[in-house]
Amino acid sequence: MQTPKKTAIVGSGLVGSLLAIYLRHRGHEVDIFDRRPDIRTIKFSGRSINLAMSLRGWQALEEVGIADEVKKVAVRMDKRAIHMPGKPLYFQYYGKEGEAIYSISRDVLNKKMIDLAEATGARFIFESKVWDVDLPEATIHIGQAQREARKYDLVFGADGAFSRVRHKMQRQSRFNYSQEFLDSGYKELTIPPNPDGSHKLDKHSLHIWPRGAFMLIALPNLDGSFTCTLFMPFEGKNSFEMLDTESKVQEFFEHYFPDVVEDIPSLLKEFFKNPTSALVTIKCFPWTYWDKVALIGDSAHAIVPFYGQGMNAGFEDIQVLNNLMNVHEDDWETIFKQYQAERKPNADAIAELSFRNFMEMSTKTADKRFILRKKIESRFAEKHPDKWVPLYSRVTFSDRPYAEALAEGDRQRIIMDKVMQMDNIAEIWDSGEVEQEILSLLNLVPSKVAR
Amino acid sequence: MQTPKKTAIVGSGLVGSLLAIYLRHRGHEVDIFDRRPDIRTIKFSGRSINLAMSLRGWQALEEVGIADEVKKVAVRMDKRAIHMPGKPLYFQYYGKEGEAIYSISRDVLNKKMIDLAEATGARFIFESKVWDVDLPEATIHIGQAQREARKYDLVFGADGAFSRVRHKMQRQSRFNYSQEFLDSGYKELTIPPNPDGSHKLDKHSLHIWPRGAFMLIALPNLDGSFTCTLFMPFEGKNSFEMLDTESKVQEFFEHYFPDVVEDIPSLLKEFFKNPTSALVTIKCFPWTYWDKVALIGDSAHAIVPFYGQGMNAGFEDIQVLNNLMNVHEDDWETIFKQYQAERKPNADAIAELSFRNFMEMSTKTADKRFILRKKIESRFAEKHPDKWVPLYSRVTFSDRPYAEALAEGDRQRIIMDKVMQMDNIAEIWDSGEVEQEILSLLNLVPSKVAR
Repeated sequence: MQTPKKTAIVGSGLVGSLLAIYLRHRGHEVDIFDRRPDIRTIKFSGRSINLAMSLRGWQALEEVGIADEVKKVAVRMDKRAIHMPGKPLYFQYYGKEGEAIYSISRDVLNKKMIDLAEATGARFIFESKVWDVDLPEATIHIGQAQREARKYDLVFGADGAFSRVRHKMQRQSRFNYSQEFLDSGYKELTIPPNPDGSHKLDKHSLHIWPRGAFMLIALPNLDGSFTCTLFMPFEGKNSFEMLDTESKVQEFFEHYFPDVVEDIPSLLKEFFKNPTSALVTIKCFPWTYWDKVALIGDSAHAIVPFYGQGMNAGFEDIQVLNNLMNVHEDDWETIFKQYQAERKPNADAIAELSFRNFMEMSTKTADKRFILRKKIESRFAEKHPDKWVPLYSRVTFSDRPYAEALAEGDRQRIIMDKVMQMDNIAEIWDSGEVEQEILSLLNLVPSKVAR
Repeated sequence: MQTPKKTAIVGSGLVGSLLAIYLRHRGHEVDIFDRRPDIRTIKFSGRSINLAMSLRGWQALEEVGIADEVKKVAVRMDKRAIHMPGKPLYFQYYGKEGEAIYSISRDVLNKKMIDLAEATGARFIFESKVWDVDLPEATIHIGQAQREARKYDLVFGADGAFSRVRHKMQRQSRFNYSQEFLDSGYKELTIPPNPDGSHKLDKHSLHIWPRGAFMLIALPNLDGSFTCTLFMPFEGKNSFEMLDTESKVQEFFEHYFPDVVEDIPSLLKEFFKNPTSALVTIKCFPWTYWDKVALIGDSAHAIVPFYGQGMNAGFEDIQVLNNLMNVHEDDWETIFKQYQAERKPNADAIAELSFRNFMEMSTKTADKRFILRKKIESRFAEKHPDKWVPLYSRVTFSDRPYAEALAEGDRQRIIMDKVMQMDNIAEIWDSGEVEQEILSLLNLVPSKVAR
C-alpha cells in the first residue's frame, strides 16, 4: 500500500489521462492541468496520425479494466495492404492468426480516456497553462492575470514532445537533450465512407502506397472513413515545396496514386487547408528530478510514427512505473530512479526502430526481395516459434523489452542477409535446405539477449 | 569588394572579437554586444581551461596581421610530459622539429583581442544583454528598464555554448539540436612560479598525470605559473562527490599525484573555492537564418576540450566565412549556405575527435603498448611523410579539414591494429619488416580521402 500523495499531471493527452486512472486506483489525489480547452467540448482540430494500438497498449488498459471499453472504438487491422501501380493488391499479414493491431482515432480515444479518468475522481483543470515548475518544491505556477502557485508531492510531465516540464529540467546543468527532425513531413487527407456507411477499401488493413522517398498510408475509422497520411520530403523532387498549385497536386496524385485519387474527393481542399507537419525524435536524460518530478510518454521520448509505437511506449511507461510502485511503495526516489533506468534504453531502442521503419514501409514493402525475405522468415517462425520471433512481432505482439527487439532484430538481419545470398533462393526458399541453413546460422551468430 | 553592411555580433569572446576585426577590415560597420562587463576593467573570474593555440588559430590571426602580437603572450609547448607514479618523467613530442602548440590564458588573449578589435573601429557595447532576436528582420532587442530594438543587416551569434541567438533559432520547427554532457567535470588549480619567477615544471610541456578514469593536466603561463585542471567523474569511486572533506582531498592528491602535490600550495583552498564545471558537446543545424543571421564558434559547435581545438575551430569558422565573402561578395544567402554546408561536417568531426581524446589522454598515454604504437607511427611518418600524417598532426599542425582527419585517423587505426599484432612487435618495431607491413597495409586499406 502506498501513502496517498497529492499529485499533479501536466497534460491531459492519452498518457496523462491513463496515468491519472492508475494513480486514482492507488488512492492518490490527482489534478490534471492542460493549457488547451476540454477536447470533449470542441470540434477536434489537432494534427494526428491515427493511432495503432498493439499489445503493450492493450495490456496497460487491461490492468485498470478499460480495455474492453476502448476496443469498442477500435478497428482491427491484421495486415498491410500494399498498393503498387499496375499490380494487384498485395496483403502482408502482421503476425500469426488472431494477431492484429487496432486503428483508433486520437480524439475519440482521448475523450473516452478523460471520461474514464474523471469517473475515478481525477480533477481536470483545462485552459490552464503551466508557466513554470519549481522542481525541488514540486510546485507548478499557473494562472493568467493572477499567477498562482500550487504545491504537490509529485509532478508528472505528460505534456508531450514540446513539454514545458522538460523545458524546465533542461535548464539544469548536465541535462542531456536532443531533437532531430526528419527531412520529411506529413499531411492528412480523408477517404470518406461509401454512401451506405461502408469502407471504400478493405476495412481490416493498414493500406500503404510505397513510392520510395515518399508514401501514402490509410488507416480505417469506425465511421467507414479512412484517415490518409502522405509522408514526403519538405524539399526537392516530389516534395511538399514543389506541390504548390492545385494542378500540380492533382497531377501528382493521378500519377502516383491512380487507384485512390478518386476516393479522396476533397483532395485539393484538404491539401491546401491541412498543415504540413514535421516529424521529430526527442531524447533526453534524466527523466526524473529526485522524488519530486517525472517525465512520461512523449515528453521523455518523442519518436517518429513509423512503428505505430508512440502511444504504446507511453502506456508501457505507466505500467513499468506501476510495477515499481508495487515493489517500492513509498520510496519514490527509488521508484523514479529505477523507472528511468529501466525505460531509457527501451525508449532509445524504439526510437531507432521507428526511424528505420520509414525505409521499410516506404521502400522495402515494394521490393520483391524484401517480400521473399519476409516469407522465409515467417515460414521459419511458424515451424520454430521458440527460435524465431520476427522483429515486428516482438515489438508489436509481445511485451519483451524494445531494446531486446532491437538487438535480436539486428541478429536476424545478419542471418537473413546470408540466407538471401544462397543460390536460387527464390526457388528453394521453402525447402529444408534453407531451414537447415537458418538453424545453423542461429548457432553461429550469438544472441545478445539473456534467455 | 563587398557593400558595407551594418552588422551586430552578439558575444565579445575570442571568436566575436576576431570576427569583428575581419568584418572591419572589409569596411563593415560592427557593433559587439555582451551581457558581461568589459573584461579589461575587472579581475578575471571566469572558468577556463587554458587555451592551446595551434596552426588553424595562428593562420586566422595571421590573415589579419595580429599573430605576432598574440604570440608575445603565448608559451610554446612542443611535447606532452607524462607523469607516472614511481617512473621517470616521459616526454612525448607532438610533432616534427619546430612543431608546437601554444598555451595562452583566455583572459589575457581576450583582452588583447578586444583592444585590437576596438582599434579597427568596432564598437563594443558591454553589460547589454540581448533579450530577443527577430531573425527575419535581423533585429536585436536590448536594454533593461527601457527595451530597445536595433535593426542590422546581419547578426552573428558568437555568444558561446549557451547562445541566446541559437536559443531563438531553436524555437523554429525543424531545428536539430543536441547537448550531451560527460559524466566527468573539471576543476582548476594553480601551481605558482618559483620565487625567482621561473616555472616549477618544464615550461615547454603540456603536463599530464594520466590515471585512467581521471587525470590532472597543467599548462604553463607567461608569469611562471601553471594552470592545472583536474578532470574526474562527478560520481562514483574517485569522484568530485567523494572528495568532500579537506583530509580526503589531501589524501587523494598525495596518493595519486605525489610528485606535484607540494607544488600546489593552495590546493585545499582552491579545491573548495573553485567551481566544479561540466563538460558538454553541443551540436545543431542549421547554423544560419537566410541571409540575416549566422552562428559562429561555440554557439554552433561546443566541444569538449581534450583536443585543444575549441578556439581553433571557431577561428577557422571565421576564415572559411572570409574566403566565401571573397568569392560571393554581396550574395550573403550563398555565403551563409555554403558556410554551414562546409563547416558542419568538420565541426561534427572535431567534436568526435575531442570526445575520443579524453580516453587517449587519461588512459592510453600511460599504456606501454600505446607508447610503442606512437613510436612506430612517428618513425614511419618520418620516413614517409607523404604516406603518413599522424592524426594529431593532421588536426593540430595542418589545415586539412577535420572530417578528413577523422576518416584518415580511422584508417590508420585499422592499419596499426594489425601492425601491433605482429609477432615480437616490441622487439622488431624499428625494422624494415614493420615498414614493409605498413606499406602493404596502406595499399590494402583504402583511403576515403580524395587526394
